Amino acid sequence: MTTTPTRGYTATKDQLQSRLRRIEGQVRGVEKMVDEDRYCIDVLTQISAIQAALDKVALGLLDDHARHCMHHGAAEGKGEEMATEMMAAVGRLMRRG
Amino acid sequence: MTTTPTRGYTATKDQLQSRLRRIEGQVRGVEKMVDEDRYCIDVLTQISAIQAALDKVALGLLDDHARHCMHHGAAEGKGEEMATEMMAAVGRLMRRG
Amino acid sequence: MTTTPTRGYTATKDQLQSRLRRIEGQVRGVEKMVDEDRYCIDVLTQISAIQAALDKVALGLLDDHARHCMHHGAAEGKGEEMATEMMAAVGRLMRRG
Amino acid sequence: MTTTPTRGYTATKDQLQSRLRRIEGQVRGVEKMVDEDRYCIDVLTQISAIQAALDKVALGLLDDHARHCMHHGAAEGKGEEMATEMMAAVGRLMRRG
Repeated sequence: MTTTPTRGYTATKDQLQSRLRRIEGQVRGVEKMVDEDRYCIDVLTQISAIQAALDKVALGLLDDHARHCMHHGAAEGKGEEMATEMMAAVGRLMRRG
Repeated sequence: MTTTPTRGYTATKDQLQSRLRRIEGQVRGVEKMVDEDRYCIDVLTQISAIQAALDKVALGLLDDHARHCMHHGAAEGKGEEMATEMMAAVGRLMRRG
Repeated sequence: MTTTPTRGYTATKDQLQSRLRRIEGQVRGVEKMVDEDRYCIDVLTQISAIQAALDKVALGLLDDHARHCMHHGAAEGKGEEMATEMMAAVGRLMRRG
Repeated sequence: MTTTPTRGYTATKDQLQSRLRRIEGQVRGVEKMVDEDRYCIDVLTQISAIQAALDKVALGLLDDHARHCMHHGAAEGKGEEMATEMMAAVGRLMRRG
């Protein structure tokens, strides 16, 4: 491939997909717990685990994006724009949505 | 009343199931975005939306659990134990896992 | 004492005050770091430590409040109101403001 | 340019100092509330406000740092190191300490 990828996480795409499939499975697990009337606190523990897994995916994406920006952003004169965009994403993650 | 429910969110079980199915769909949506090499920041925005939806489910569960505890916990002399358990769950949600 | 306290953390008031004084000192420490042009990442680490300390204070307050509600809320027929109020507080803490 | 600044938020140092002084005042306000036995939920609301103000300071610092890295990091061949460091800081802020 001769073109420059527009996103930064190409290298870990497989890893990312497998993490997301695991998260999808965890959400289905919570649906099953609710279906089986499992104890509320145990359901909450599973939801916390999903949030932690999503945070990990988000940090991975951010990390790769930051690295990509360092390499390409400045060179392409898009440093400001990329920093603004990235910090907006961090803000949404910190406030969760 | 002849039976005591063991969890507090019975009344909203359908609503809870439909929210969780929607969250499962959102996770699959993120998998598709990654598969299609969509822009990293857009993927992060979707992840933030999933986090917010999970927080909403968690708060709903906690709310119903707290109401349940208020009604039954004290009466059954389990107030202390239930408060300890609930706060541990809140702590995990605040620290996300 | 013959009256019922209106808040739940009486037992740990001293502990709470000393934690808050320590947090106040940590904030002054960050002001000093900024004044001395200390490295941004080190300042952020200190801010994270303050956030963690505030979370701990908040969880302590919530815990005592929940215990108090378990003991008094149900008896006084204020269980619903107290649960609503408490969950609103948890929601604000999770979304941070 | 003859000197390279070691941190990125020089431009907003005054603003940062005034925000931190306000946060210090908010913490003292919470100490006073506890001293006066104010209602627990009101104290928690104030703590959430302090957390939100600290998040804002942290995002400002991160934003300036990211911009600084975009401009200088890549040029100085420190892009990787700076991205790693910055993401560790974001992770601490998301997990709060």
